[in-house]
Amino acid sequence: MKLNLLLTGNELMAGDIIDSNSAMVAQQLAPQGWRIHKKVTVGDDSALLQKEIDQLCEEGDVLIINGGLGPTVDDLTAAVLAQLCDRPLTEHPEALAHLSHWCEQRGFSMNASNRKQAILPEGCDIIANARGSAVGIRLMYRNCLVLATPGVPSELRQMLTDELLPLLQQRFESDHIHTLRLGVFGLGESGIQELFDRELPNWPDNIELGFRASMPVLEVKLTARGEHANTTLAEWRTPVETLLGEHLLGELPLSLPSVLVDELSKRNQTLCTAESCTGGLIASQITSIAGASKVFPGGIVSYSNAMKSSQLGVSEALLQQHGAVSRDVALAMAQGALRVGQADVALAVTGIAGPDGGSEDKPVGTVWIAWGSADHLKAECLVLPFDRQAFQMWVSALGMELVRRHLLGIATMPSLIQRYCKKAH
Amino acid sequence: MKLNLLLTGNELMAGDIIDSNSAMVAQQLAPQGWRIHKKVTVGDDSALLQKEIDQLCEEGDVLIINGGLGPTVDDLTAAVLAQLCDRPLTEHPEALAHLSHWCEQRGFSMNASNRKQAILPEGCDIIANARGSAVGIRLMYRNCLVLATPGVPSELRQMLTDELLPLLQQRFESDHIHTLRLGVFGLGESGIQELFDRELPNWPDNIELGFRASMPVLEVKLTARGEHANTTLAEWRTPVETLLGEHLLGELPLSLPSVLVDELSKRNQTLCTAESCTGGLIASQITSIAGASKVFPGGIVSYSNAMKSSQLGVSEALLQQHGAVSRDVALAMAQGALRVGQADVALAVTGIAGPDGGSEDKPVGTVWIAWGSADHLKAECLVLPFDRQAFQMWVSALGMELVRRHLLGIATMPSLIQRYCKKAH
Repeated sequence: MKLNLLLTGNELMAGDIIDSNSAMVAQQLAPQGWRIHKKVTVGDDSALLQKEIDQLCEEGDVLIINGGLGPTVDDLTAAVLAQLCDRPLTEHPEALAHLSHWCEQRGFSMNASNRKQAILPEGCDIIANARGSAVGIRLMYRNCLVLATPGVPSELRQMLTDELLPLLQQRFESDHIHTLRLGVFGLGESGIQELFDRELPNWPDNIELGFRASMPVLEVKLTARGEHANTTLAEWRTPVETLLGEHLLGELPLSLPSVLVDELSKRNQTLCTAESCTGGLIASQITSIAGASKVFPGGIVSYSNAMKSSQLGVSEALLQQHGAVSRDVALAMAQGALRVGQADVALAVTGIAGPDGGSEDKPVGTVWIAWGSADHLKAECLVLPFDRQAFQMWVSALGMELVRRHLLGIATMPSLIQRYCKKAH
Repeated sequence: MKLNLLLTGNELMAGDIIDSNSAMVAQQLAPQGWRIHKKVTVGDDSALLQKEIDQLCEEGDVLIINGGLGPTVDDLTAAVLAQLCDRPLTEHPEALAHLSHWCEQRGFSMNASNRKQAILPEGCDIIANARGSAVGIRLMYRNCLVLATPGVPSELRQMLTDELLPLLQQRFESDHIHTLRLGVFGLGESGIQELFDRELPNWPDNIELGFRASMPVLEVKLTARGEHANTTLAEWRTPVETLLGEHLLGELPLSLPSVLVDELSKRNQTLCTAESCTGGLIASQITSIAGASKVFPGGIVSYSNAMKSSQLGVSEALLQQHGAVSRDVALAMAQGALRVGQADVALAVTGIAGPDGGSEDKPVGTVWIAWGSADHLKAECLVLPFDRQAFQMWVSALGMELVRRHLLGIATMPSLIQRYCKKAH
């Protein structure tokens, strides 16, 4: 089955919005073994749309059109399809019923611009839209199945799941594909590839290894095709998980804070944070997870030295003697956090996010991280040569990962991070 | 000048990455009055690439190809161009010099896969790449100027600015366009459109009004074309700014936290935060701004009631009597923050982010915000019917906006927000 995608919208051509719809379509097609053959994007221009639809229908078995179904004069899809198929535009009773129901539910009265969305090429089928006012259009043109869909991402997503995929599955053979998506922290793509090549030399031909970096977590994706895909994948899961070892966070979807909240919950432990250079980013990531309140009493954002002293009990003598970015201050912050939050585990970070504030001895990017429980506090210094935003992101991620490792009893640092560790202070 | 764009890469077709490069190209072309006519995306497939390049060159004056210049076997652009132009692939001396310099700078020795990037269609010109190993390719095919560029966004960005735009300006007439981009908080697109229609009835034809929502800030974009664009835009700036009034944050680029840090700095004032339901998000947004340390001593993330008491001095009686999500507790948190941070201004938020924790009286989405200075503390209750992430984002944004209004002496709430305010408690 050869499937093409046509996206329409002046806002896409002007770069005012970034197209995420086509990735969504591709991701939903992938598990069936279907790919998008070619993707064309044009503005809201009748002549150009006609030409492209004509050509894409000639070349393919299916054409998904995305956008141009709205109520304004820019929305041309229905009119262009009618012209190409040489059919008149008429009010479609089912589409009108949908619109009237949609307006009623929201307490609107239907106006002329709503009503325009029911004017469709005569004799076409509609595709139900569970979330929006615009129904989709289904018709055959040049022996190609044309499916016109709305541009609003949430509407498209639901229409794909509920309508388009079942429809395509009915008409075309799908090559069922099984995937396993694992979240990894602290190993890079090339490192993992080498590890697989070296340690799993009998890797089967029918499992494809792929990567996707969604900072700070790396997605390792195993895709199995063919008749025995499911069995092969199940067989290889354990060796792969063993190989990834302590760097494996678990099966996606997950995030570092979600994993951390889970691990704390399992152990019935609580965490308190003391943040200087990350300024609350760690706390905000943890509290973005529903249910965080069970394991996170809170944290101190001690950006100033005064707050390090007054809130965390870091002595002024210590700050004077070693400076705010030092092992002793990081450990004192962690001790303060344990006390303040009456917590089982603490995480404290103090560093220089830049762009200013660095010195020869402590350049921008230097950070001390202290973490652990009252009887087992550790501290480590790193120099991360990133800009302010990336520095804050990586320090937060690494801090959470170190707490995860503490909980799991893993004594080592993540591989990728070791290169940034500063020796002996 | 008719300009087409061809993107290539299996990762684009599979939906593994979302294409932001084409928006970048469009945005860089726009100020010259140039638009992308048509955009085609295909996988790494020689035959398909040849066919598309052939057709796009026939249809246009310029074709920008993006991607496929890398060192791996998937990278086909040079080979496909050579085949189309019927020229052999040869090692390009300038490209080789660039590669050898690039490797040297990084302490690498050049290997075969690096070297592949210097194998280009004979007689083509190269386009300098200041950031990466792959040079761009420039040649004429079917009377169309073909510009092949690297897929790495940072490399493309620099190549566009340094090389492609000057080149295109030399060859094609540009229609200089002036834009003014203003950041607005608390007014919606349709509200602003109505305001303009009503209050500025003599709006000139040569200024286009556009919007872009980049939550929580709305971008209002004025685009002037033609000979007197610059003058017209300058004349209309003041009426527009007056119309947007207290909702205007300033000229973009800016963000709510950057504006807040600026306004505090101007007044030599400091802010301390006390966050419950936003869990550190406000503090982390403020400290994402370089220079925040001058105005932000820090904050307390008092997620638990115990930390509200121990860190902010909220009495247990108050928590018992009114509950954590109440006017009195919000005000007590703000007073605590003023004391803890020895700050001029405080911002405190306490609410129910959900999905659990709501009651009939205080449903999920309820939040009390308290803000101001010691002699002028205010509190307001809102019910925001959003999911957890959106709730946290909007509470943070609104809190910062209320502090901005406090600093500027604006007594009212943002228009859009008023509908969510809960009356009398």
